[in-house]
Parts: sequence; C-alpha cells; structure tokens
Amino acid sequence: MIVVMDFGASEEEIGEVEERIKSFGYDVHHFNGEPRAVLGIIGSPGEDTRDALEVMPSVERVIPVSLPFILASREFKKDKTIFEAGGVEIGGEKIVLIAGPCAVEGKEPFLRAAEAVKKGGADILRGGAYKPRTSPYSFQGLEEEGLKIMAEAREITGLPIITEVTDQHSVEIVARYVDIIQVGARNMQNFTLLKELGQVDKPVLIKRGMAATIEEWLMAAEYLLSNGNHRVILCERGIRTFETYTRNTLDISAVPIVKDLSHLPVFVDPSHGTGKWKCVPSMSLAAVAAGADGLLIEVHPSPKEALCDGLQSLVPEKFSQLKASIRGVAQAVGRIL
Amino acid sequence: MIVVMDFGASEEEIGEVEERIKSFGYDVHHFNGEPRAVLGIIGSPGEDTRDALEVMPSVERVIPVSLPFILASREFKKDKTIFEAGGVEIGGEKIVLIAGPCAVEGKEPFLRAAEAVKKGGADILRGGAYKPRTSPYSFQGLEEEGLKIMAEAREITGLPIITEVTDQHSVEIVARYVDIIQVGARNMQNFTLLKELGQVDKPVLIKRGMAATIEEWLMAAEYLLSNGNHRVILCERGIRTFETYTRNTLDISAVPIVKDLSHLPVFVDPSHGTGKWKCVPSMSLAAVAAGADGLLIEVHPSPKEALCDGLQSLVPEKFSQLKASIRGVAQAVGRIL
Amino acid sequence: MIVVMDFGASEEEIGEVEERIKSFGYDVHHFNGEPRAVLGIIGSPGEDTRDALEVMPSVERVIPVSLPFILASREFKKDKTIFEAGGVEIGGEKIVLIAGPCAVEGKEPFLRAAEAVKKGGADILRGGAYKPRTSPYSFQGLEEEGLKIMAEAREITGLPIITEVTDQHSVEIVARYVDIIQVGARNMQNFTLLKELGQVDKPVLIKRGMAATIEEWLMAAEYLLSNGNHRVILCERGIRTFETYTRNTLDISAVPIVKDLSHLPVFVDPSHGTGKWKCVPSMSLAAVAAGADGLLIEVHPSPKEALCDGLQSLVPEKFSQLKASIRGVAQAVGRIL
Amino acid sequence: MIVVMDFGASEEEIGEVEERIKSFGYDVHHFNGEPRAVLGIIGSPGEDTRDALEVMPSVERVIPVSLPFILASREFKKDKTIFEAGGVEIGGEKIVLIAGPCAVEGKEPFLRAAEAVKKGGADILRGGAYKPRTSPYSFQGLEEEGLKIMAEAREITGLPIITEVTDQHSVEIVARYVDIIQVGARNMQNFTLLKELGQVDKPVLIKRGMAATIEEWLMAAEYLLSNGNHRVILCERGIRTFETYTRNTLDISAVPIVKDLSHLPVFVDPSHGTGKWKCVPSMSLAAVAAGADGLLIEVHPSPKEALCDGLQSLVPEKFSQLKASIRGVAQAVGRIL
Repeated sequence: MIVVMDFGASEEEIGEVEERIKSFGYDVHHFNGEPRAVLGIIGSPGEDTRDALEVMPSVERVIPVSLPFILASREFKKDKTIFEAGGVEIGGEKIVLIAGPCAVEGKEPFLRAAEAVKKGGADILRGGAYKPRTSPYSFQGLEEEGLKIMAEAREITGLPIITEVTDQHSVEIVARYVDIIQVGARNMQNFTLLKELGQVDKPVLIKRGMAATIEEWLMAAEYLLSNGNHRVILCERGIRTFETYTRNTLDISAVPIVKDLSHLPVFVDPSHGTGKWKCVPSMSLAAVAAGADGLLIEVHPSPKEALCDGLQSLVPEKFSQLKASIRGVAQAVGRIL
Repeated sequence: MIVVMDFGASEEEIGEVEERIKSFGYDVHHFNGEPRAVLGIIGSPGEDTRDALEVMPSVERVIPVSLPFILASREFKKDKTIFEAGGVEIGGEKIVLIAGPCAVEGKEPFLRAAEAVKKGGADILRGGAYKPRTSPYSFQGLEEEGLKIMAEAREITGLPIITEVTDQHSVEIVARYVDIIQVGARNMQNFTLLKELGQVDKPVLIKRGMAATIEEWLMAAEYLLSNGNHRVILCERGIRTFETYTRNTLDISAVPIVKDLSHLPVFVDPSHGTGKWKCVPSMSLAAVAAGADGLLIEVHPSPKEALCDGLQSLVPEKFSQLKASIRGVAQAVGRIL
Repeated sequence: MIVVMDFGASEEEIGEVEERIKSFGYDVHHFNGEPRAVLGIIGSPGEDTRDALEVMPSVERVIPVSLPFILASREFKKDKTIFEAGGVEIGGEKIVLIAGPCAVEGKEPFLRAAEAVKKGGADILRGGAYKPRTSPYSFQGLEEEGLKIMAEAREITGLPIITEVTDQHSVEIVARYVDIIQVGARNMQNFTLLKELGQVDKPVLIKRGMAATIEEWLMAAEYLLSNGNHRVILCERGIRTFETYTRNTLDISAVPIVKDLSHLPVFVDPSHGTGKWKCVPSMSLAAVAAGADGLLIEVHPSPKEALCDGLQSLVPEKFSQLKASIRGVAQAVGRIL
Repeated sequence: MIVVMDFGASEEEIGEVEERIKSFGYDVHHFNGEPRAVLGIIGSPGEDTRDALEVMPSVERVIPVSLPFILASREFKKDKTIFEAGGVEIGGEKIVLIAGPCAVEGKEPFLRAAEAVKKGGADILRGGAYKPRTSPYSFQGLEEEGLKIMAEAREITGLPIITEVTDQHSVEIVARYVDIIQVGARNMQNFTLLKELGQVDKPVLIKRGMAATIEEWLMAAEYLLSNGNHRVILCERGIRTFETYTRNTLDISAVPIVKDLSHLPVFVDPSHGTGKWKCVPSMSLAAVAAGADGLLIEVHPSPKEALCDGLQSLVPEKFSQLKASIRGVAQAVGRIL
C-alpha cells in the first residue's frame, strides 16, 4: 500500500503518518523521487488501515497495491476450480447451459417449459420462485409453491435446478429444494445473505451487481469462500452505463479478466445482460468465444404470455437452434458442449 | 403507455399486439403519422404488461408515459410531507442536521463523539451498529452492543438517534432502540427488508442506491409507503460514475428533481457522496442551497483513529464552523437552522 | 413524437402547446387515457421541434418515437452495405483484419511492423501519423512524414493503409496518401471534420465516442452519409463506465444492435476497447462471434519499445496465432477469413 | 510512478523491467513487502513511459503517483489566477454571471435578448454563432453573421461577449469579434483546436467533456497554458451517467476539487448541466454555495420560440429574480455579486 502525502506536507506531518502506520503493526518505507513525499507500507494492510490513513489531514491519497481478495485469487489457488452441482460438472471442459423461464408462474406452464428446455438441450433448469421486483405492484413470485413445482420438474426431466434466494430467511427452505442457489445482482452486496450462504452445502451462483466493479464482485465471492462454501460460480449479467438502448451493458471483457484473476468458474447471462431477446443468440456466442464456462439463458414456452421479463426470453425452438451454433464456437475455442 | 411496432410490421402482427393489450383489460388507440405503427394504451398498465408486450416479436419498443410511483408522487399528494421523528420536525422550514461517526466503535469514543456532535449543534445523532463492508475481513460492527451504546448516548445528550439496518432479522431489535431507521445504498432494492420496514412504526431514511435512477429510488420509497409506513426520508448519497477522483458523484440536481416529483423530504449525505472530508463543507452548503431538507454528516472526535470511513469525517470543530456557514445559506434560501 | 403535459395542465396550456406544434406544420392528435394529457404529433419532427416544445412551461416531457437517423437506417436501405476499400471488400462474407502499430514512430520500425503484419495475415495496415494525446507533453505523431512511411509500407506489402485524421486541415493531405480515413473516438462529434469527410472520395471508419450512445454514433455516420460519402464503417472501441480495471468497457452488444438498426458494416477494436493486450485475443473472438464484420488490432513488432499504447499491442506471433483462432469462430458463425 | 509486477514474476523479468525504466533515464527503487514485486521510479515520468512499461509481459499494473498536469496545478502556482476579460474581473471576489440565448437566431431577437440580459444584471453576454448539433438536419448557426450581431449587441449593451468556436479554421475570425472564446464539451479533447487557442490573445472558457475525468479536463487546460495562453476558465457542465432524467449529471463536487488542485477559475453551467430549466435556479445557487467563480446561464427572451436548447433557458424575469437569490448565497459564502 502506497501513501501519497499532500504537496508541501511538513516533516512533522509525515512523521505522524509514519507513526500511524506503525500503530497498525506495519513497517514503513520512504520512497523518494516524486515532488510529493510517498510512503510505502511493508505488508498488505486492508480496508480499515486504508480508511484510517486516508483521513489524515496531510495525506492526499492511499493507493492499494495488492488486490483485496485472497481465497478467490489465482495467487491463492493456481488451478481452476472444477466442482459438481446436481450431477453436472461446472468449470470443466464442457460449457454448461442453464435455461428456463424467469419466473415459475404456475405448475402447468413451468412443467411445459421444463420439458421444452430439456428437449432443447439444457444441462440445468432455472426458474424464479422469489422475484425481486422494482415495483411493489408487480408479481412477486410463488415462493415455496414455486419451489415444489421446480422439484417436480426435476423429477420429470432429470435436470438439476437453480433458483434465486432474496433473503437469509429463505436460505434454508431454498437449499432444501434446489441444487444450485442463485444470488441476484441486487443482492451481490447483501452481506448478511452472503454469510448465510457461505455456510450452506450447496453451490452458489453469484451475479455481478449492476454497479459492481470486478474487484467488488470477487470480494462478494470472498464472503462465500471465507465462510466455508467453495463451490462458487461468478455470473456476469451486464452493468449499468449511460447506454440505455440495451437494458444493461454486458461486460464480456469481464470474462477473460476474472478468469485471469481468479480460479472460479465464470458464467454469462446474455438475457438480463442485454434485455433484448434479439441479442441473446449473438451475445451467447460472444460469451463462449470469450471463454465463459457456462450460460444462463431465459427460455419461455410462450414468452408472449410471460408475467415478467418476457422481453429477454427465447422460445424453445430458438434455444435449440442456438445450442447448435454454440457448439461450433465452443469447438473453435477448444471446449465441448 | 405507447407501443412502437417494428418497421414493416404486418396488419396481422399489429392485430396480435392489440389483442394482447386487450387481454390485460385495456383499450387501444391507433396513432398514425409515424413511419412505424404506434399504439397507445388507454390507462396506466404496469411493469408486467410492459414486459409482456416488449417481448412480442413485432414490437420494437414500449414507452411508459406515466411515472410508476403512485403514493410517493406529487400527483397523489400535493403538499409536502412533514412529520416528527424523535421529537424533531422533518420536512418543515428547518434544515435538520444528522451527525455522528460512521461506526460505533466502543462506548467511550462514541459517547465522546455524541457530546461533541451535540455541542456542535446537531439535531439527530447517527452511528453504525451493523456495518455493510465490502471485505469479509473488515470490522463489521458491534451489533446490539452498539445499539445499547447509542441509546445511552441519547440519554446523555437528549438527541434522537438513527442507525442503519442491514437485514430483516434485525429490524425488530433496531426499531426497539432507535428513533429513525436507515436503509443503506446497498439495500435500497432489498425488497424483503423494505416490506418489513413498511410495517414498522418508525420513520425510515432511505439512501439512493449507487446505480439507482431517481425513478427506482422513488419506487423503493413506494415499497415503504404501500406497506403502510408514511414517514419516509429520501437521502441522496452519490451515484457511481466514471469519475473516480471522488468516491461517488454527488447528484445534487436530484434534490430539486425529487422535490418536484414527490412530496417526501429529501436529505443529502455529502460525506459518503464525495468520500473526501475536504469536500464536505462546500457540498453541504450546495445541498442546502439546492433545497435539501437536511444533511447527514460524518463527524468523528478523532477521525485519525476511526475504524472505518474516517476519510470522509469532519472533526467536531469543523462541524461547528460548518453549522455557522450553513445558517447563512439557509437564510438566503428562506430556511432556518 | 409524443408530448406529455404536466399533471394538472390547464386546457389553455394544452391549447398553447397544440398551437406551437401546428406552427411547425404538424397535425396534433389527442391521446386520452393517461392521468396526464398526452399529445401525439403526426409526422416526424426533428431535434429543433423537440427542443422548442420541451421548454414550454406546461410540458413535462417530449418522447421521440422515431429514431433520428435516416440514411444510416435499415428502414432507408434494407440490404447491408458492401463496398470496396483499397481493393478489400468491406461488409461482405469475409471478416476483415486491420492491424498494425498505434503510431508510426520511424521508418525502419514501421516497415518491420508492416511486414510482420502482412506475414501474420492482415488485410489492411494501420498506423498513426497524427496522434490525439491527452497530454501536451506526449509524442504527437510524425504527421506527413508518417504518411510517407505508410505509403512506402503499402508499396512493399501490397496492403491498403488506414490512418486517423484529427482535424479538417489535414483531411486533404491524409486523403491523398491513405485508402481509408479513420475518425477517432474523441472526434466522433467533431462535426466540422465530419462534414469535410462527407465530401471526400475515400471510405471513412468512424469510432464510437467514449460517451456516445448508439443513436449518437449513428447520427455521426449520418453526417458523413448526408454529405455524400456512403462508404462508412462503424467501429466499436469501448465506452467509459465506472469499471476501470479495463481502460474502457467494450460494448460487444453494440454489434448486433447496430447491425439490426443500420445497413453499415461494423468493426470492433479490442485493443483500445480493453486497453489490456491479454484481453485482445478473447475479445477478438467474441466480436466475431457477435457478428462483427472486421477487427482493428494493434500489433507492434516490439511492444516493449512502443512510444504509445504499447499496453494493448500484440506481438506479431500472437497476431498470427490469433488469426488461426478467429478462423474457427468465423466458420462457426458462417463467415470466412 | 509505481510498477506492480505479475504474481510470480521471475528475477529475470523484474530485471528486464528495471532495464527498461533505466533506458528512459530514471532510477529504480525496489519496494519489498508485498506478495508481488513492486518497483518505484525515481522522478515523474509521463504517459509515454507508462504505456511502454504497462505493455511488458510481466507487468501487472503501472500506478502514476503524480498528477500529470503541471502549469494548471496549485503546486506550480499557489495563488489563484485572476485576470480580466473584456473589462470584467474573472476569478476574483465577485461571482461573474454570463447569460444569453443558446444560439444567435437573428438580429432582432438577439438584440432583444441582449437588452433583457443586461437589464437582468448579467456581466457578460453569451450567444452561439457556430452550433455543434447532433443531427446534420438541425440548425447549425449563423456563423460570421452571428458574430456581427453579437458585436452589435456589445455596442448597445456595453457587455463583453463570449461565443463557442468549433474548429481551428474559425479561431481567427471568432477571436476578432469576441472577448472570450468558448470551447464546448465535445471539443474538450480537440487538441488541434486547443493548440491554436493556446496562441490566441483572448481568454478561453473550456467546458468539461461529458465523459472527461477531472484530470483529463485539467490536461486540456494544460494544452492551452503550455501553448502560452494563461487566461483559462474551467466550466463544469455535467457529465454523462446512467441517470437520464436530467440530460447530464451536474458534478458540483468538481468545483471544490478543481479549486483544490488548480489555481484556475471555475464556472458552472447549470443550464446544460441539467437540461431542465426548472433546475437552473436551484443548481445556480448550489454552484455558488460550492465555491464557483461564475455561472453560465441560458436566458432567452422567448424560450418558447428558441430554435435550440430552449428547454434549459430561463425567461429574463426569472433570471432577474435568480440574481437576487444568488446575491444572498454569495454573501453567505463571502463573495459579492
């Protein structure tokens, strides 16, 4: 960690900062040659030290040198993480396809969707039982009833299931029913929820928050890892930018970056990432070409009738065609499907 | 709500969309004169209808005309909302100053801070007992122990207290101790928490999420209002932009905009909004000049020793001076302090 | 165009807006069923009318229905635009590779780079003779001397050449030497330059500005088209967002969106788009998978010695390997290389 | 400047980076104590050195310690810059009001506007003769004819005049007519134009680009200063963010930040900054409260009839009232009007 002093900081002020650094148990290194005094801290102090130093009156800036995640980093674990979730290998050679409707809207339509998705070639079935909605007046999900329907769909199709959990209250019940638990973008920094999920014996897929930096996203994974859950999937789903023609800007470059920084598997959600079903096929191919380990795609047997997020859903036939195109790209980058 | 069809949509496709609109119980209005077919929906359908229409293959875009919040809007309630919180009038002529340290770090320092803040002229005392931290390795707060210290500080100073709640589990205990409950930026769309707080008989201060639009922020307030809690304070605290010299970009223009759209009181947090204590005085004055009803300012008796967010804290003497400057600006805009 | 009136606008105010619309020569359509009065304008008025209406005291918002570009749109020209530039077909079945160093730093190194790029399989050679640099103290380019070196490299390699022009003064001289003229991101809205280039008989590659919406980018192309130059290439090069781990956020989703809205060919620059050479191969593959018609890649014979932007440059051997990988992805999406 | 090596970089790779640093004439300082090797560069190398090092295969990141602007910095010149422009003192105790219509649309309306602005209490008259417009189909300005009208307005009112120049071609003619030359947001990084203006004997007001960091904005000023023009005004006019309810997000916090980093005067344009005339009064007051040295406000005698940007214009009576409110805030922060 580097401390840059104010221009013209006095010897006394520099001494105070040095004292403060030492009070945290670190040694100090004087770094000459800049117009301003610069101090180096020997060791890797964390957020608390940084905050404590930045506030000192003569300090201009504190620049962290090390990245703050440990267990999520390639420095800690060199080989990529591969694990099994509901019988499906995650992070291996094979690109994993998670597909299904946004919300579980009822038994009959969900079972229909599940069979279509199965037939279309998905590896894992998704569906939402607890829906975070911007408006209190929108459909909020079927809750446990929805979980039961999903479990029945698993019985019928043999596909493992994934669903989103929106608060720590529901973690236990969701964990009882599903194979993978999803943390949505809005809850990426719901630290209470993350701590709870760190103690659950189910893999967790954690979506990137819409204003989260790559570093913050990896710190969210660190909450899971440091609480004991090592089966973590990172899922890019678009960030919020000034461009509003697409609902979000899908940050495909996050895939190679995260795979370079971390050993964890990285998935991409092109449906939420763009919010336009027309873009889903091309962005699915782009994600696989960029190195994604899996995709999360909304498929609805009848998107015209979907109660939420129909906008970004593919019909089953399109999903099936898409799978064929993905196969070609996967082979070109040395993966299988 | 306006539905713009694809260029070259057929009569049949337009008919299908019309049918779909009618299936939601709305009448349709044909709007001629654009190169594309445009349909108007008679009535104010919500998010679900929008999503259902946007997904139809021949629909290019759906444009909402009405804003989605109802109870939070000036259309619903013309007069500005004024209420009492722990004996302090919120939203009235007087600018309300909330001040205190970021975190309750221990009894002795917090009581010292409380007295300094009281002496400096604050109306309400703040402190954090539950801290949402980016890193699992950072100080996470004293929890109930912290609430007890805050209550003791209230006893001594006579100032009402405000603290952040980070999950629905803690709502009951927090509500038992404090006068105002704060929802942090990261929880602005924690809908489970919002629903819970909607049923609590304590005023709630809700911070704007760092990637939240003004509309989404007002929708978060709508969750509180529609669940029965009408004592809501909106607090601007900076949005995330490409500019990283400041920790966030404090969107002061949100103050006049929100006061125009809504009857709810609007506060500003210049400490988190900029992340630089040097900017806190000038941005406090700017917020009051722009029409803010109150300020949320970090004050620490010894920011050099703060365990978190010391960076943006003022020392008590500076807070006291700041209060004097604010008085002048408040008078210039017809407010009192 | 839709005009939404203020809540509670009087009949008289609505009448005034109606008069104003008619004064521009358009008919008005009353649109009932919303809580606010809504007026539709029959026809497609432009920016000036919009601005004139938005300012009226009782108008809340004006919502354009049509997209503002005409000649660049698929509505105007349904088939995709294919043209020839220096003997290379642009916008056809074949993915076009433009490669070379960021700046022409001297004759010997540039000729060496040109031969490496040729050997590596590029279709077009790039190089910068006029460099827009953030700092007045950085290397600003060799200007005409650089153009001469580029022309010599074309002689030797047979590759057509492309270079950036930074002001209208230099358009004539640049057009004399090169086969394609590039407009950089910082000049995307340099309208004087665009008008000048609209009258030049050379194809123009126009990069997206770092804060430009897709709509504004297409409007920049419209400046070229409406001034008579129909050989326009759009080049996505990353937008500025809160994420700073990459220099920019490469908006790959802009590729399918622009190809849907416009008939013009779309290229991607993964080098500037990410600012990290490690990401260039994966993002090149992603761009092709998403439907890009070509790539603009920085290649430097010795990036360790590059005077600018070396960070994002590939060495020739890596470029050569990359070409082989691109071929596989291109085939998977029905393109050739 | 700090160079952070890749995790696990070999001694040989570190040695190569060290060699490269020395080849630029700088000494190297080894900095131990981090998990990665860290090198410090003795001296303040610029952008070129940074780029050259960042590209080296074993280098993870290069972190600049010094800010890149020199002449614009408080380190170079401690006292704030005060100069005279057309008889008006800029940067002194007095808040300077620049007002007028967006575009010069004709002689009669402009003279009417000029007189209204004069009567309302403006210090400097603005008007646009060369208009950068997003659409080629919008009104582009009266050019020299507009300058003549502005000069006549100066004759009549005695107010100095300011107008925007959009390309280096027009610098000479614009400089002949006006007292202050404005560089618009879209041209903030039009370096050819900046170099030209650096050699003109007229003060220059340079607006912040809509995606420009504070550092880049000060580097644009550095282009002017390093080319010999020391009469530079910086003008904040809003940055582009995800929030689209306002046209831009006016970054008021840039005022105290820039005044801390630089000695140059800082103005604020609340009209373009928000794009909503309803926000102009409150944001004007906020800017003055935050320490702005002047304001740039659009005033139009009849905004209902304005050909461009009427949306953000005040009518003269509102401007006059606004001046009275500004006076109160100015006094509260120790300034005069």
